[in-house]
Amino acid sequence: MIRIAVLGAGRIGRIHAANIVANLNARLVVVADPLESAASSLAKRLGCEASTDCVATIDRDDIDAVVIGTPTDTHIQFMLQAVERGKAVLCEKPIDLNMEKSLAAANEIERLGGRVMLAFNRRFDPTSQAFRKAIDAGEVGDVRQVIISSRDPGMPSREYVSHSGGIFRDMVIHDLDMARWLLGEEPVEVMAMASRLVDPTLSDVQDYDTVMVQLRTATGRQCHINCCREAVYGYDQRLEVFGSKGMLLQENLRPSTIRRWTRNVTDAREPLLNFFLERYEEAYKTELAAFVEALRMHLPLPTSVKDGLKALHLAECALESVQERKSVRV
Amino acid sequence: MIRIAVLGAGRIGRIHAANIVANLNARLVVVADPLESAASSLAKRLGCEASTDCVATIDRDDIDAVVIGTPTDTHIQFMLQAVERGKAVLCEKPIDLNMEKSLAAANEIERLGGRVMLAFNRRFDPTSQAFRKAIDAGEVGDVRQVIISSRDPGMPSREYVSHSGGIFRDMVIHDLDMARWLLGEEPVEVMAMASRLVDPTLSDVQDYDTVMVQLRTATGRQCHINCCREAVYGYDQRLEVFGSKGMLLQENLRPSTIRRWTRNVTDAREPLLNFFLERYEEAYKTELAAFVEALRMHLPLPTSVKDGLKALHLAECALESVQERKSVRV
Amino acid sequence: MIRIAVLGAGRIGRIHAANIVANLNARLVVVADPLESAASSLAKRLGCEASTDCVATIDRDDIDAVVIGTPTDTHIQFMLQAVERGKAVLCEKPIDLNMEKSLAAANEIERLGGRVMLAFNRRFDPTSQAFRKAIDAGEVGDVRQVIISSRDPGMPSREYVSHSGGIFRDMVIHDLDMARWLLGEEPVEVMAMASRLVDPTLSDVQDYDTVMVQLRTATGRQCHINCCREAVYGYDQRLEVFGSKGMLLQENLRPSTIRRWTRNVTDAREPLLNFFLERYEEAYKTELAAFVEALRMHLPLPTSVKDGLKALHLAECALESVQERKSVRV
Amino acid sequence: MIRIAVLGAGRIGRIHAANIVANLNARLVVVADPLESAASSLAKRLGCEASTDCVATIDRDDIDAVVIGTPTDTHIQFMLQAVERGKAVLCEKPIDLNMEKSLAAANEIERLGGRVMLAFNRRFDPTSQAFRKAIDAGEVGDVRQVIISSRDPGMPSREYVSHSGGIFRDMVIHDLDMARWLLGEEPVEVMAMASRLVDPTLSDVQDYDTVMVQLRTATGRQCHINCCREAVYGYDQRLEVFGSKGMLLQENLRPSTIRRWTRNVTDAREPLLNFFLERYEEAYKTELAAFVEALRMHLPLPTSVKDGLKALHLAECALESVQERKSVRV
Repeated sequence: MIRIAVLGAGRIGRIHAANIVANLNARLVVVADPLESAASSLAKRLGCEASTDCVATIDRDDIDAVVIGTPTDTHIQFMLQAVERGKAVLCEKPIDLNMEKSLAAANEIERLGGRVMLAFNRRFDPTSQAFRKAIDAGEVGDVRQVIISSRDPGMPSREYVSHSGGIFRDMVIHDLDMARWLLGEEPVEVMAMASRLVDPTLSDVQDYDTVMVQLRTATGRQCHINCCREAVYGYDQRLEVFGSKGMLLQENLRPSTIRRWTRNVTDAREPLLNFFLERYEEAYKTELAAFVEALRMHLPLPTSVKDGLKALHLAECALESVQERKSVRV
Repeated sequence: MIRIAVLGAGRIGRIHAANIVANLNARLVVVADPLESAASSLAKRLGCEASTDCVATIDRDDIDAVVIGTPTDTHIQFMLQAVERGKAVLCEKPIDLNMEKSLAAANEIERLGGRVMLAFNRRFDPTSQAFRKAIDAGEVGDVRQVIISSRDPGMPSREYVSHSGGIFRDMVIHDLDMARWLLGEEPVEVMAMASRLVDPTLSDVQDYDTVMVQLRTATGRQCHINCCREAVYGYDQRLEVFGSKGMLLQENLRPSTIRRWTRNVTDAREPLLNFFLERYEEAYKTELAAFVEALRMHLPLPTSVKDGLKALHLAECALESVQERKSVRV
Repeated sequence: MIRIAVLGAGRIGRIHAANIVANLNARLVVVADPLESAASSLAKRLGCEASTDCVATIDRDDIDAVVIGTPTDTHIQFMLQAVERGKAVLCEKPIDLNMEKSLAAANEIERLGGRVMLAFNRRFDPTSQAFRKAIDAGEVGDVRQVIISSRDPGMPSREYVSHSGGIFRDMVIHDLDMARWLLGEEPVEVMAMASRLVDPTLSDVQDYDTVMVQLRTATGRQCHINCCREAVYGYDQRLEVFGSKGMLLQENLRPSTIRRWTRNVTDAREPLLNFFLERYEEAYKTELAAFVEALRMHLPLPTSVKDGLKALHLAECALESVQERKSVRV
Repeated sequence: MIRIAVLGAGRIGRIHAANIVANLNARLVVVADPLESAASSLAKRLGCEASTDCVATIDRDDIDAVVIGTPTDTHIQFMLQAVERGKAVLCEKPIDLNMEKSLAAANEIERLGGRVMLAFNRRFDPTSQAFRKAIDAGEVGDVRQVIISSRDPGMPSREYVSHSGGIFRDMVIHDLDMARWLLGEEPVEVMAMASRLVDPTLSDVQDYDTVMVQLRTATGRQCHINCCREAVYGYDQRLEVFGSKGMLLQENLRPSTIRRWTRNVTDAREPLLNFFLERYEEAYKTELAAFVEALRMHLPLPTSVKDGLKALHLAECALESVQERKSVRV
């Protein structure tokens, strides 16, 4: 039984906490959040302890692992503390918005032999897992092209955008991680374009809302990513992998298989699932289960801090490609 | 908190027991099964008591409700005992294979004011619920025709068939209940055809494997049901409702949205979910939740013993139609 | 080069005439219609002769074959005249609305060794042809169930209905022919239900608008047909064949493969093709080509007067089943 | 009635010639090809004159327009001759593989006021026309991203490749024209990647087989193109346009709507249409009809030599981007 503390009782912390409770091999010991009401209401609902002190929580002896769902700028501090105390860590992305700090933290974690898993939830989506398994099983033969469509249902608040690190570090980073995972090789070249087609005033914060990225690996495999902060039809998450033996497509999930036929519209499907919390609900469960399973069985963690570093680096290359209007070698 | 005992630790009992454990408003107190190893292993896994005595279990004072997942010929006895002891009941279908016994039991339950819900799981399938909600919301206008396709992945054993009561009472009864539920009116006429196209030797037990049924309500609404004990492509469960304002289709569920393109086959979807336990996994959860919710809130139970009687009667009418080659008035 | 006269310059005659012009192995010699303006305007557009005298047209020596697209009550007269004069005939359905007259005509045609093809256009639909070929190739193994959905976009005029012979002889007859064609065996039992859900005043003319029919062959193959005179979403024509090795579905055709995603509706397809003239546009061409090819190559005609008789007989059995509320032996 | 000569009796010439014959407003006067047997057999089949002298054919007085389907290196010569003689021209792409020659020819045609239409057949595909109309009607609002997937069923011969001008000028050029047409604005920046994943020995002829291109317009609209010379599942032609109000997808066409369900594969669709001649069969007809209609009605031709120049220039920018590993300003 893996004993776990959850740091952060916000949106993502609540999801992890509930998934721990539902996992037969894990036990939720405590939820910590500086905001007392957040911690205690979540703890009460799930039947565990509450704390307002994250630092003290990490130090508890009755904790095997820590799930970090606090604001980004606390990630490194809590990760390192947990590693130093010998606790395993499941940490939300990104490590940090700053590449150098991230690199330093990664090195320190490696030096200490820390067991840290970065929460790239999309890799754990059952459909994406089936996708990857089919690729590994050789269903498409040698991978030639990967296409990732990733559009959010609507612009986040200006407040959010200001602290997000920009669309590449905040949003496209997920797709860059998927690109690495599906290509099966590291990208060596990045070409990117970015526009402000949803909100032209994003120029005030040097950010963009509509993006295309092109990646190439050393052997010539290619990947295209398209992103937009706003798709009126909903949260759009599609994948395509094309290879020497065929192609796999991953369509959007929907709440049901109903199709509607009316006077004006025929064979319309259900609306898309609202946003990532709904779309990746199963993925969060599978991710937590994979973390717990690796700890129980003393297996390597399925994702690492290095995965976080590499995705962040690709995001910075893409941003440089946009700003310099050039192709960037990774 | 509703305190529940599960009778029967077989396939269906295990599902109900696990769903009780996962339900925040219910508590699984005890699992009873004459087979000691079945009861104890399930109890151990789910952290509840075990018993080999169903009768004594029903009598326990710390039990509010009983879920009956024992063999069909015990349903009436346990239902009546539970009702007499003031316990609510969720009972698997059918009430009994004999119509007269079923009727007598229903009358007794009514006389005693018993709270008994028949487990018509398909009604609780989230997609079917969405289907019904859309009909109630007037999306198809006045219902004109309902079409139900329902094919099993493969013939059950001869042993199973011999005790099943025949394809109409065992298999088509689910579709007849769906027909009543989706038509929104009681059928008044039944026309049925049945063949032995999978296994001609079913004539030895006077049973059939391939069936078509046609129903008509007093206002003229129509329903078609097609069933087969064997579909090589898997467990096929589709619905269509056609009305004055449009049509709703319900496709089969699949494990993922992946589509495969290869040299010989393009755009193929995932195989169907294996059988009813997988296909209606969510339905069983929703069914249990609806039972618990009705008890907590003192609401009417969503399905009744009468629903069971009516479906059974329609099954018998269909069988008569086949045997007499005539149209049968309900 | 097969030299052809078209009788009737109405909707269906114009289609046949244009298809003859486009067929490299046929020549349109003359179009005859009692309505002078109809004949002459069509003839002018297609570059052939015009006539107002159908009888004289049939007698012309420079004609090898006659396509009959005149009103139903003239079919038998023109067919017999053409047969007597040694001309091949492609005649629109039905032979006649009266079964006895139809039978007498069929006998006379047989006695004379006449070459008459009944225009069951749906059999020549390229998609249905592919369907049938797949069945013949054993793709579904032994056929068990056939399901035919056939709904018109809207009620015809009361005038039309009054002279139509009723929904079974006018509309369902097409589906009954498809049933025979797809079942690969003759139906021996018919069960039918009919309602007035679109227009209750159809009782004035003893007709119906919403129908379900069930057929069984001697070996136990089953077929379900559902029809309605009005589907607000358009002309709905679907087929399903289920057998021991699999299933084939035939979806509706659409003008393009575009799918639309908007705020409220995602993945909606194009509206259906308006009605039979549009939906079966290719079928009419293929039908004419099959007629011409059979004449050129001295092959048996692909459909016969007997096919017309059998479909009409099934329609009458279905009507009897509705009126007598009984199962009817064919 | 527009009187037309077809130059070239090869694969594409035969298609244009047959479409002229079927067009009620055009007349095929003569087919010219240096290969006598090719010209005469086509002429015989279509009932027109044959010639082995293209130059003399262009000069004929009884010709209003010339369709050029001869080898690429003869396009400019025949175009200019026809323009000088006052004949309208429908010319296959490309103008020429050499940009400077193409530019000089375009200038000369403009100076002479020549009426020349470049045969960008894909624009005339009925589905693509519907796509464009929907965009023009504002269905997707302001266009943000266009995605074009374009994969051939198999590698052409090395002989073909050697004379093709390379994948960008030969294959991607069609997609670049579609990009311009669907974006509704001229691209100002091109980023491209190219690999040899199908046939590594293409390095011998400095060509590629797998390509990704990214385009940006001045206002920030983006387009992605992916191409491959070989897709084992067939000729893959898909479009996506995403804008402020929604998205349009264009799926591949198929020979029928049949879906197959078997033991191992469920809901598989028909194989794709073999290659461009089958896929764009209707497009060639519509293209010819648009050419004839513009001549009859004295309207501007729907595509021009400038469209050819611009697509060729984009192809060269893309090639430069690949070779220099940089972003190229158009």
